[in-house]
Amino acid sequence: MSNPVLVEVTRGGRVESRHEGSVAVFDAAGKSVLSIGDVEAAVFPRSAVKAIQALPLVESGAAEHYRFGDRELAMACASHSGEPEHVAASTDMLARASLDGGALECGVQWPADQKVTVALARSGHTPSALHNNCSGKHSGFLCGCQHLRFNHAGYVDADHPYQELVRRSLAEVTGAEHGERNRGIDGCSIPTYAVPLKSLATGFAKMATGTGFSTDRAAAARRLFAACMAEPFYVAGTDRADVWLMQAAPGRIFAKGGAEGVHCAAIPELGLGIALKCDDGHGRAAEAACAAVLTKLFADDGVVQAKLADLVAPALKNWNGIHVGGLRPAAVLV
Amino acid sequence: MSNPVLVEVTRGGRVESRHEGSVAVFDAAGKSVLSIGDVEAAVFPRSAVKAIQALPLVESGAAEHYRFGDRELAMACASHSGEPEHVAASTDMLARASLDGGALECGVQWPADQKVTVALARSGHTPSALHNNCSGKHSGFLCGCQHLRFNHAGYVDADHPYQELVRRSLAEVTGAEHGERNRGIDGCSIPTYAVPLKSLATGFAKMATGTGFSTDRAAAARRLFAACMAEPFYVAGTDRADVWLMQAAPGRIFAKGGAEGVHCAAIPELGLGIALKCDDGHGRAAEAACAAVLTKLFADDGVVQAKLADLVAPALKNWNGIHVGGLRPAAVLV
Repeated sequence: MSNPVLVEVTRGGRVESRHEGSVAVFDAAGKSVLSIGDVEAAVFPRSAVKAIQALPLVESGAAEHYRFGDRELAMACASHSGEPEHVAASTDMLARASLDGGALECGVQWPADQKVTVALARSGHTPSALHNNCSGKHSGFLCGCQHLRFNHAGYVDADHPYQELVRRSLAEVTGAEHGERNRGIDGCSIPTYAVPLKSLATGFAKMATGTGFSTDRAAAARRLFAACMAEPFYVAGTDRADVWLMQAAPGRIFAKGGAEGVHCAAIPELGLGIALKCDDGHGRAAEAACAAVLTKLFADDGVVQAKLADLVAPALKNWNGIHVGGLRPAAVLV
Repeated sequence: MSNPVLVEVTRGGRVESRHEGSVAVFDAAGKSVLSIGDVEAAVFPRSAVKAIQALPLVESGAAEHYRFGDRELAMACASHSGEPEHVAASTDMLARASLDGGALECGVQWPADQKVTVALARSGHTPSALHNNCSGKHSGFLCGCQHLRFNHAGYVDADHPYQELVRRSLAEVTGAEHGERNRGIDGCSIPTYAVPLKSLATGFAKMATGTGFSTDRAAAARRLFAACMAEPFYVAGTDRADVWLMQAAPGRIFAKGGAEGVHCAAIPELGLGIALKCDDGHGRAAEAACAAVLTKLFADDGVVQAKLADLVAPALKNWNGIHVGGLRPAAVLV
């Protein structure tokens, strides 16, 4: 049984492609506000849960010890574009814990953004692990290890004590099993656990409100969300959807995409968490669907809706700049 | 009503993403050999029909006049990676008709392949229209215009006499309507027409066999297919699926992908044409599905099947080279 179409891609006035998927909007008590498609099916959240994975960094006292501000905390939750500012921020985070890029175990990646790749190639440099979109998260892991006096070697492995802290945070926040049975390996080599979409949505509502959390965890979650919303560029990069989503209502929307068409978000003032997955893994549809869901939830706020409009229905232009079609939300998201 | 799942993407032993779509394998008489999903629905074939769009180049006598060999004809059917050899070939084609890259109306594009982009950026150059993946097709259009003494300005427009020749070729080969009603604009600014998948499959069977064609058209189609199969690198580029597909059985498989998850192919010895569309537009699935269909059709040929195996079920590795999952054909394609 397929999930409904979330986003349509048009050309010449026809639907050229379509993206199916599921959407869960839940409050912190686990009550559904909007459920489209199968919200019980387990999905790998990939990078969408980086803010939850960053909880031990704050809760351990490492973030305070290393005097991390909004930029460093945003980087710890980031899938960044590998722009010079991101590389510098990761380098700085590691230096505060007497480490350098050589300690990173995330692998080397040319920046995903073509402009950044071109600039890096023109500079005559090659990418390092610091350019990996996950280098901020990994720098946070390494700083956590240093502060807790864990041997950081192999910190990406599921049985490393720091990954056990991360796993426990994910399990507690989402209320879902995180074990060997539902474990995969992520692009940056750390574990990723497949959990129901509704558990992710509930978890993000809890992150946004602190409901059911200890005082310390509530403060850590609030601190991380505040940092991401204050420095969205450090969560993503130039022209990236998560920046636009968070800037549509500064301080009022948290948003974070993950690979394979996952997007999570939260609206603290409404106490809601959002998790969605495009079944085909296409990020273009996940971004548009996330913007469409936010537009529905900000039903009374025309200003926010106007700022989201280009994300909800982006135009597609060809190499000559001619408008050839676009994306648009399908009926279930209007 | 959704089409069936064609390709699954796995991670950690689970299905992480899935790609639905439709597949049509038809003979030149329009008889179905394999139909999966809705093969009557109209799809924009995009670049998958470049070999059909190149018919006027040969039929007009331009290809012979300009002494085009396999490389130039393969380029006329290509979505190339913008590698130096491709740029040189386009430049050479245009020079034979006393033109240069300035006549191209396909738009400027950084090469799609990251390695090629990095090499171009390092060289200190910027891309021109010659790097556009369609520059070979457009060079063919321009040479056709020159030979026929058409004013080439605006050759991309639907009402230009050369595009009218192209449109007529598409309509005649596929037997499907090609008019304003089903017209969109392609990435390189020429028209693209949405036609039923089964018409595309039948058209490719006709291209492969000449069935129902005039002697001249049959010879032109044979010449273009032979050129692509002889010089697959010039149809695509380094590490590209269409090269691998055609090299799996040299001279026996024609294959050409298009944007938004379309793939067309033909097996001349079986008299069959193949057309498929992944509904979500994802090329990774279209390539794997095309390889899976070819594997089915080469049921008695273990050598060809072995060469296709890595395309049918490619492994996914992360930034550290760790095997994290892969693509695999769904039940309908096994």
